[in-house]
Amino acid sequence: MSIGFDIMATDGAARRGRLSTAHGKVETPSFMAVGTAATVKAMLPGSVAATGTQIVLGNTYHLMLRPGAERIAGLGGLHKFMNWPGPILTDSGGYQVMSLADLRKITEDGVTFQSHIDGSKHALTPERSIEIQHALDADITMCFDECTPFPATHEDAKKSMELSMRWAARSAATFVPRDGYGLFGICQGGVYPDLRAASAAQLTKIGFAGYAVGGLAVGEPQDVMFEILDQTVPALPADRPHYLMGVGKPADIVGAVARGIDMFDCVLPTRSGRNGQAFVTGGTLNMRNAVHADDPAPLDAQCTCPTCADYSRAYLHHLIKAKEILAAMLLTWHNLHHYQTLMADIRAAIEAGTFAEMAAAFAQES
Amino acid sequence: MSIGFDIMATDGAARRGRLSTAHGKVETPSFMAVGTAATVKAMLPGSVAATGTQIVLGNTYHLMLRPGAERIAGLGGLHKFMNWPGPILTDSGGYQVMSLADLRKITEDGVTFQSHIDGSKHALTPERSIEIQHALDADITMCFDECTPFPATHEDAKKSMELSMRWAARSAATFVPRDGYGLFGICQGGVYPDLRAASAAQLTKIGFAGYAVGGLAVGEPQDVMFEILDQTVPALPADRPHYLMGVGKPADIVGAVARGIDMFDCVLPTRSGRNGQAFVTGGTLNMRNAVHADDPAPLDAQCTCPTCADYSRAYLHHLIKAKEILAAMLLTWHNLHHYQTLMADIRAAIEAGTFAEMAAAFAQES
Repeated sequence: MSIGFDIMATDGAARRGRLSTAHGKVETPSFMAVGTAATVKAMLPGSVAATGTQIVLGNTYHLMLRPGAERIAGLGGLHKFMNWPGPILTDSGGYQVMSLADLRKITEDGVTFQSHIDGSKHALTPERSIEIQHALDADITMCFDECTPFPATHEDAKKSMELSMRWAARSAATFVPRDGYGLFGICQGGVYPDLRAASAAQLTKIGFAGYAVGGLAVGEPQDVMFEILDQTVPALPADRPHYLMGVGKPADIVGAVARGIDMFDCVLPTRSGRNGQAFVTGGTLNMRNAVHADDPAPLDAQCTCPTCADYSRAYLHHLIKAKEILAAMLLTWHNLHHYQTLMADIRAAIEAGTFAEMAAAFAQES
Repeated sequence: MSIGFDIMATDGAARRGRLSTAHGKVETPSFMAVGTAATVKAMLPGSVAATGTQIVLGNTYHLMLRPGAERIAGLGGLHKFMNWPGPILTDSGGYQVMSLADLRKITEDGVTFQSHIDGSKHALTPERSIEIQHALDADITMCFDECTPFPATHEDAKKSMELSMRWAARSAATFVPRDGYGLFGICQGGVYPDLRAASAAQLTKIGFAGYAVGGLAVGEPQDVMFEILDQTVPALPADRPHYLMGVGKPADIVGAVARGIDMFDCVLPTRSGRNGQAFVTGGTLNMRNAVHADDPAPLDAQCTCPTCADYSRAYLHHLIKAKEILAAMLLTWHNLHHYQTLMADIRAAIEAGTFAEMAAAFAQES
């Protein structure tokens, strides 16, 4: 069979579940740390696991260009290559071809483009994307799709969604079923309820191990995103995991869980950490700010991560000013820990039947 | 009393000793990891300790400019600031003022200069250097000296050494004796035996907790350095630790231990790690080289560090090509582990009375 998904508790539309994959279990709602180029930037894998992270995301676009999917396969697969023995989800490459590659050209067959690294020419099709993800040994493979831009007219969003649905069928036809491995479909349709409904129906008809909501977190306001989730998530099979791609801020995550989302990924905690921004109880801190230069307090007095246990704001400020690598290491660790603590709190609240209160408090705060 | 130094065994001129400082013991011969700006670059302090490192070096020049010595004192001292509870040695700032600062001017009183960071004007005198190192709470404080350039005429080397000796007396007069804290004198004199002898005699007369050999590792060939050690080390008090500043490659260290040196510091393992160079049994590897791209082997099959346990050369090569922070983290860890394993091997060989054989094998290899 594919990957397992058990729902142990619900609280409103929020679900407390568990994924079972070839490389282990994932408690949901889950936040996946982004490991773009076969590393969660500035973190040792053991430290990533210590934050409570149970699954990491690899980027097909980056890995196919460097070091190459077949090279990673020859070295024993992505888990062994990057020393992450737990579950891995890979994206399809579709999103980053659009945002990073040069001279890209989309046809019915797929996308041709030039590498942003060395200008070399490449092609990605649904078949090739699935093949690459298989070579990487991803536990969860994503369908190759076109991420519909925002804003887009109804006509453009419809064309784009329909192309993605044809690519989803080709992705499903290519995917090799294996125990503990699964293929996720991606619902598109922009901000248009009829298109989202049509996409959800077509994906359900094909049948996937899980269902992602794509094309969000591309610049639309939070209330627009939540509206789309209100319409879209109920149209997805309830017994399968729901994954909101590329989201988001803590308040986005809580609001999406309240709407039935089980899985998330976002560069925010890791990228912010490298840029000197810390997520703390009630907001964020810019650690570049001189106000921290003499502050002996930890980033967050309520946090149990090693950064908060052992280092002052003054020290972190100093490391950032001195452009020290340790700044990125300590802030990334803290931010990931902060996110994973949020996910653990969400899971506990759903189990306790108090998630609605948590979500309401969060909506008010943000 | 000052810092303790017990010699437990000797093998020829090589000594197996133990420093006792306010923040713990240090087994000698010892390699100090360089922690320039209050961090051993790309390493968590716990990882530094895991390599076998027992003492780290902080740079007075860097720390006085950013974040400032009095600021660190206000935050509880350098140990607490950088989360390194073990012994710390600080240099005097003299060497780096000469190599990094702008518009420097030397007088009998000291050095005035402009910060290489922001152009601000500063002064370092023997008194101020000792005061800064006290504020940082260094277990081992170094005398403020002028590092004699190489090459230098006998006349220039003599003038420079004599200035350093007057500064050494002023440093000793300023240093506040405390239990577990010590001041080290620095022998200068360039490549001239008579000047080295005069310097050693003057320092011995003043009396220090330890004696450093300065002005080496500045471009002279290894045999010149060894000759100077052959002449200089016997002139230093035998019951006190001998520290060779800024040295060096593994073969330099082994050769210096054979000549009675007990302590070392060098940026080589950490800086090389950030530049993609790995120290391995019998030599070095340039991990940027494409020959490693498909190599599943660890850096060094004989090494027990986490980098060698969990990662392939292919992965490390990939991280370097992708400019990933983890490359610096893993290579620095390995290189420091390699150096500390060398020091442990040296200590074991002295204890076993087999150090001469080890040194001979090393001299042949390099």
